[in-house]
Amino acid sequence: YGLIDADEESGQEYVSRISGHPLMGQIQLTGERAKVEDVRLLSPVLPSKVVCIGKNYADHVAEMSEITGESTEEPVVFLKPSTAVTGPGDPVFYPPISQRVDFEGELAVVISRPCREVPRERAKEVVFGYTVANDVTARDLQKSDKQWTRGKGFDSFCPIGPWIETGLTLEEAGDLRVTTTVDGEVRQDGRTSQFIHDIPAMIAYISSFMTLLPGDVVLTGTPAGVGPVDVGAEMTVAVERVGELTNRVITRD
Amino acid sequence: YGLIDADEESGQEYVSRISGHPLMGQIQLTGERAKVEDVRLLSPVLPSKVVCIGKNYADHVAEMSEITGESTEEPVVFLKPSTAVTGPGDPVFYPPISQRVDFEGELAVVISRPCREVPRERAKEVVFGYTVANDVTARDLQKSDKQWTRGKGFDSFCPIGPWIETGLTLEEAGDLRVTTTVDGEVRQDGRTSQFIHDIPAMIAYISSFMTLLPGDVVLTGTPAGVGPVDVGAEMTVAVERVGELTNRVITRD
Repeated sequence: YGLIDADEESGQEYVSRISGHPLMGQIQLTGERAKVEDVRLLSPVLPSKVVCIGKNYADHVAEMSEITGESTEEPVVFLKPSTAVTGPGDPVFYPPISQRVDFEGELAVVISRPCREVPRERAKEVVFGYTVANDVTARDLQKSDKQWTRGKGFDSFCPIGPWIETGLTLEEAGDLRVTTTVDGEVRQDGRTSQFIHDIPAMIAYISSFMTLLPGDVVLTGTPAGVGPVDVGAEMTVAVERVGELTNRVITRD
Repeated sequence: YGLIDADEESGQEYVSRISGHPLMGQIQLTGERAKVEDVRLLSPVLPSKVVCIGKNYADHVAEMSEITGESTEEPVVFLKPSTAVTGPGDPVFYPPISQRVDFEGELAVVISRPCREVPRERAKEVVFGYTVANDVTARDLQKSDKQWTRGKGFDSFCPIGPWIETGLTLEEAGDLRVTTTVDGEVRQDGRTSQFIHDIPAMIAYISSFMTLLPGDVVLTGTPAGVGPVDVGAEMTVAVERVGELTNRVITRD
């Protein structure tokens, strides 16, 4: 693991290696340091579970009800398997069985400690930080299966990264721009202030029925504009003040 | 971890402590031994994921289509969070938000090694053994949420145990009696020979889209007879030649 900082004068970003696990108590700088562009970043967390909130931006709810014929005003919770997690710059594999694979850019919340039945007002105590995720979805299988596990569960369908931003308050995280760009073209452009269920509400709801563990990741939903990508496409999800997550779609040979 | 054996003459079952992890290569007997009834057994595995096959016994498919109004001939795959796993004898907590909590007795398959795209004929190479599970389900929430994550994901909703039987072939596992008894009354009584999708087909299907890891658990579906339990009920799922898993339903105070 490493800490990422920018040099105040040059703007150059560095990774400083740390010893210890950032979620398990004390960490120490080892003194080793490298430029960000000289290292390969992996997913900044290996979650025991990835818990996703669906239909959390009003404009996306509207577009999805056109695609799936469903509508709901309740938060929808689903899981992506931890084996779907992949890092920044890693490939997303297009499954031959699908005819339509979509990007879904999202702000992701990383949980800091074991927690259950977290009231809204204590949500900030269980947030370690924020990162960026792409809830890649085989839309045709999501629709035909009804349960979303397969459509959203393929290996590589959960890029997370490039790092965890620990310097934002809950209030700040509740008003960030989220964009998804495909091959340079902006396809999604929303703000987390459009959440139907805000971050404290999401954490309260999820933890009302399942214990969250350190490193677990909550995907907060995607704004309007979801759409298909072809093999070769480069997807970039950017969350203001957090970072950019870029992955290319390829076929597995 | 321990090995469980019965004394051939007396039938007394013993747990022999082992060093090492049974899924991670070599294990050794430490020489310590205790009677099974003198130790508290925990869940025999801490899976990275619990992958469930729904609607896998024809008679259960029929009864569920009456409850949910849905029907399907495809295997349905869904996930239970690892935080739902609990051990034999542990309580199942009745969520105050639900009005109907059901038992679902099942044979469970424990995976031995990382695997992806496992063909039917190689399924036996990735099976470590078999255990018993209860896919406890808040039926009302399963139905109203449409996605099954919450209804099947509460903490304690996945009892697993009492141990892993490693001495069965795939063929033998494909013809075992599965019963669920509530307070002494038999409520489910099926055989794994009634599977719509057999174990090699399940492993092939799941691993076609997600990598399975050592210790991952596949729940193979439940036979007809699912029904509600009240607080205080004692549920026992028994799988022939594997074992019996008993859990009592309580409220969390």
